[in-house]
Amino acid sequence: MTEPNVAADQLRLLIERIERLEEEKKGIGDDIKDVYLEAKATGYDPKIMRQIVRLRKMQPHDRQEMEAILQTYLSALGME
Amino acid sequence: MTEPNVAADQLRLLIERIERLEEEKKGIGDDIKDVYLEAKATGYDPKIMRQIVRLRKMQPHDRQEMEAILQTYLSALGME
Repeated sequence: MTEPNVAADQLRLLIERIERLEEEKKGIGDDIKDVYLEAKATGYDPKIMRQIVRLRKMQPHDRQEMEAILQTYLSALGME
Repeated sequence: MTEPNVAADQLRLLIERIERLEEEKKGIGDDIKDVYLEAKATGYDPKIMRQIVRLRKMQPHDRQEMEAILQTYLSALGME
Protein backbone atom coordinates (compact mmCIF):
# COMPACT_ATOMS: atom_id res chain seq x y z
CA MET A 1 0.00 0.00 0.00
CA THR A 2 2.75 2.49 -0.92
CA GLU A 3 1.26 4.25 -3.94
CA PRO A 4 -2.42 5.31 -3.67
CA ASN A 5 -3.45 3.91 -7.09
CA VAL A 6 -1.83 0.57 -6.41
CA ALA A 7 -3.64 0.32 -3.07
CA ALA A 8 -6.95 1.38 -4.67
CA ASP A 9 -6.58 -1.23 -7.41
CA GLN A 10 -5.65 -3.91 -4.91
CA LEU A 11 -8.64 -3.07 -2.70
CA ARG A 12 -10.95 -3.01 -5.72
CA LEU A 13 -9.72 -6.44 -6.85
CA LEU A 14 -10.28 -7.92 -3.38
CA ILE A 15 -13.80 -6.43 -3.20
CA GLU A 16 -14.61 -7.71 -6.69
CA ARG A 17 -13.40 -11.21 -5.81
CA ILE A 18 -15.70 -11.18 -2.77
CA GLU A 19 -18.61 -9.94 -4.88
CA ARG A 20 -18.12 -12.70 -7.47
CA LEU A 21 -18.01 -15.32 -4.71
CA GLU A 22 -21.12 -13.84 -3.03
CA GLU A 23 -22.86 -14.02 -6.42
CA GLU A 24 -21.88 -17.69 -6.79
CA LYS A 25 -23.04 -18.42 -3.26
CA LYS A 26 -26.38 -16.77 -3.96
CA GLY A 27 -26.71 -18.87 -7.13
CA ILE A 28 -26.23 -22.07 -5.15
CA GLY A 29 -28.73 -20.84 -2.56
CA ASP A 30 -31.21 -20.42 -5.43
CA ASP A 31 -30.42 -23.95 -6.67
CA ILE A 32 -31.17 -25.29 -3.19
CA LYS A 33 -34.51 -23.45 -3.16
CA ASP A 34 -35.26 -24.99 -6.56
CA VAL A 35 -34.66 -28.52 -5.25
CA TYR A 36 -37.05 -27.86 -2.34
CA LEU A 37 -39.64 -26.51 -4.80
CA GLU A 38 -39.19 -29.57 -7.00
CA ALA A 39 -39.60 -31.81 -3.94
CA LYS A 40 -42.72 -29.90 -2.92
CA ALA A 41 -44.17 -30.30 -6.42
CA THR A 42 -43.51 -34.05 -6.11
CA GLY A 43 -45.47 -34.14 -2.85
CA TYR A 44 -42.74 -33.90 -0.17
CA ASP A 45 -42.97 -31.41 2.68
CA PRO A 46 -40.04 -28.95 2.41
CA LYS A 47 -40.13 -28.06 6.13
CA ILE A 48 -39.73 -31.70 7.14
CA MET A 49 -37.00 -32.12 4.52
CA ARG A 50 -35.09 -29.20 6.08
CA GLN A 51 -35.38 -30.95 9.44
CA ILE A 52 -34.03 -34.15 7.90
CA VAL A 53 -31.06 -32.29 6.38
CA ARG A 54 -30.33 -30.80 9.80
CA LEU A 55 -30.67 -34.16 11.58
CA ARG A 56 -28.39 -35.91 9.05
CA LYS A 57 -25.66 -33.36 9.83
CA MET A 58 -25.65 -34.42 13.49
CA GLN A 59 -23.74 -37.32 15.02
CA PRO A 60 -26.15 -40.18 15.94
CA HIS A 61 -25.22 -39.76 19.61
CA ASP A 62 -25.94 -36.02 19.60
CA ARG A 63 -29.20 -36.63 17.78
CA GLN A 64 -30.34 -39.23 20.35
CA GLU A 65 -29.43 -36.88 23.17
CA MET A 66 -31.38 -34.04 21.53
CA GLU A 67 -34.42 -36.29 21.08
CA ALA A 68 -34.25 -37.46 24.71
CA ILE A 69 -34.15 -33.87 25.98
CA LEU A 70 -36.99 -32.94 23.63
CA GLN A 71 -39.09 -35.80 25.08
CA THR A 72 -38.31 -34.65 28.62
CA TYR A 73 -39.44 -31.10 27.84
CA LEU A 74 -42.60 -32.28 26.01
CA SER A 75 -43.41 -34.49 28.99
CA ALA A 76 -42.72 -31.68 31.50
CA LEU A 77 -45.13 -29.45 29.56
CA GLY A 78 -47.80 -32.17 29.29
CA MET A 79 -47.53 -32.13 25.50
CA GLU A 80 -47.11 -35.87 24.99
CA MET B 1 -44.85 -41.99 -4.72
CA THR B 2 -46.65 -45.25 -5.45
CA GLU B 3 -44.18 -47.90 -4.35
CA PRO B 4 -42.39 -47.32 -1.00
CA ASN B 5 -38.88 -48.09 -2.34
CA VAL B 6 -39.29 -45.78 -5.30
CA ALA B 7 -40.46 -42.99 -2.99
CA ALA B 8 -37.62 -43.63 -0.54
CA ASP B 9 -35.04 -43.52 -3.35
CA GLN B 10 -36.54 -40.37 -4.78
CA LEU B 11 -36.53 -38.68 -1.38
CA ARG B 12 -32.95 -39.79 -0.72
CA LEU B 13 -31.82 -38.40 -4.08
CA LEU B 14 -33.46 -35.04 -3.37
CA ILE B 15 -31.88 -34.86 0.09
CA GLU B 16 -28.47 -35.81 -1.31
CA ARG B 17 -28.72 -33.13 -4.01
CA ILE B 18 -29.49 -30.56 -1.30
CA GLU B 19 -26.56 -31.80 0.80
CA ARG B 20 -24.14 -31.54 -2.13
CA LEU B 21 -25.32 -27.99 -2.85
CA GLU B 22 -25.06 -27.04 0.86
CA GLU B 23 -21.51 -28.40 0.82
CA GLU B 24 -20.66 -26.29 -2.26
CA LYS B 25 -22.24 -23.23 -0.65
CA LYS B 26 -20.19 -23.78 2.50
CA GLY B 27 -17.04 -24.09 0.35
CA ILE B 28 -17.72 -20.72 -1.26
CA GLY B 29 -18.40 -19.23 2.17
CA ASP B 30 -14.96 -20.47 3.21
CA ASP B 31 -13.42 -18.95 0.06
CA ILE B 32 -15.01 -15.61 0.98
CA LYS B 33 -13.54 -15.84 4.49
CA ASP B 34 -10.15 -16.57 2.91
CA VAL B 35 -10.33 -13.40 0.80
CA TYR B 36 -11.12 -11.34 3.90
CA LEU B 37 -8.19 -12.99 5.72
CA GLU B 38 -5.90 -12.25 2.77
CA ALA B 39 -7.13 -8.64 2.76
CA LYS B 40 -6.50 -8.40 6.50
CA ALA B 41 -2.99 -9.77 6.07
CA THR B 42 -2.41 -7.07 3.43
CA GLY B 43 -3.48 -4.38 5.90
CA TYR B 44 -7.15 -3.81 5.05
CA ASP B 45 -9.88 -3.81 7.71
CA PRO B 46 -12.29 -6.71 7.02
CA LYS B 47 -15.18 -5.05 8.91
CA ILE B 48 -14.97 -1.92 6.77
CA MET B 49 -14.66 -4.10 3.65
CA ARG B 50 -17.90 -5.88 4.61
CA GLN B 51 -19.55 -2.46 4.91
CA ILE B 52 -18.24 -1.50 1.47
CA VAL B 53 -19.61 -4.74 -0.06
CA ARG B 54 -23.00 -3.97 1.52
CA LEU B 55 -22.96 -0.35 0.33
CA ARG B 56 -22.00 -1.34 -3.24
CA LYS B 57 -25.07 -3.59 -3.37
CA MET B 58 -27.36 -0.61 -2.77
CA GLN B 59 -28.69 1.82 -5.36
CA PRO B 60 -26.93 5.23 -5.04
CA HIS B 61 -30.27 6.84 -4.18
CA ASP B 62 -31.03 4.34 -1.40
CA ARG B 63 -27.53 4.74 -0.06
CA GLN B 64 -27.83 8.55 0.06
CA GLU B 65 -31.18 8.23 1.81
CA MET B 66 -29.72 5.81 4.36
CA GLU B 67 -26.79 8.15 5.03
CA ALA B 68 -29.12 11.12 5.45
CA ILE B 69 -31.27 9.22 7.99
CA LEU B 70 -28.13 8.03 9.79
CA GLN B 71 -26.95 11.66 10.07
CA THR B 72 -30.36 12.71 11.43
CA TYR B 73 -30.24 9.99 14.10
CA LEU B 74 -26.63 10.76 15.04
CA SER B 75 -27.54 14.43 15.35
CA ALA B 76 -30.67 13.67 17.42
CA LEU B 77 -28.51 11.62 19.80
CA GLY B 78 -25.80 14.28 20.01
CA MET B 79 -23.25 11.92 18.48
CA GLU B 80 -21.92 14.26 15.80
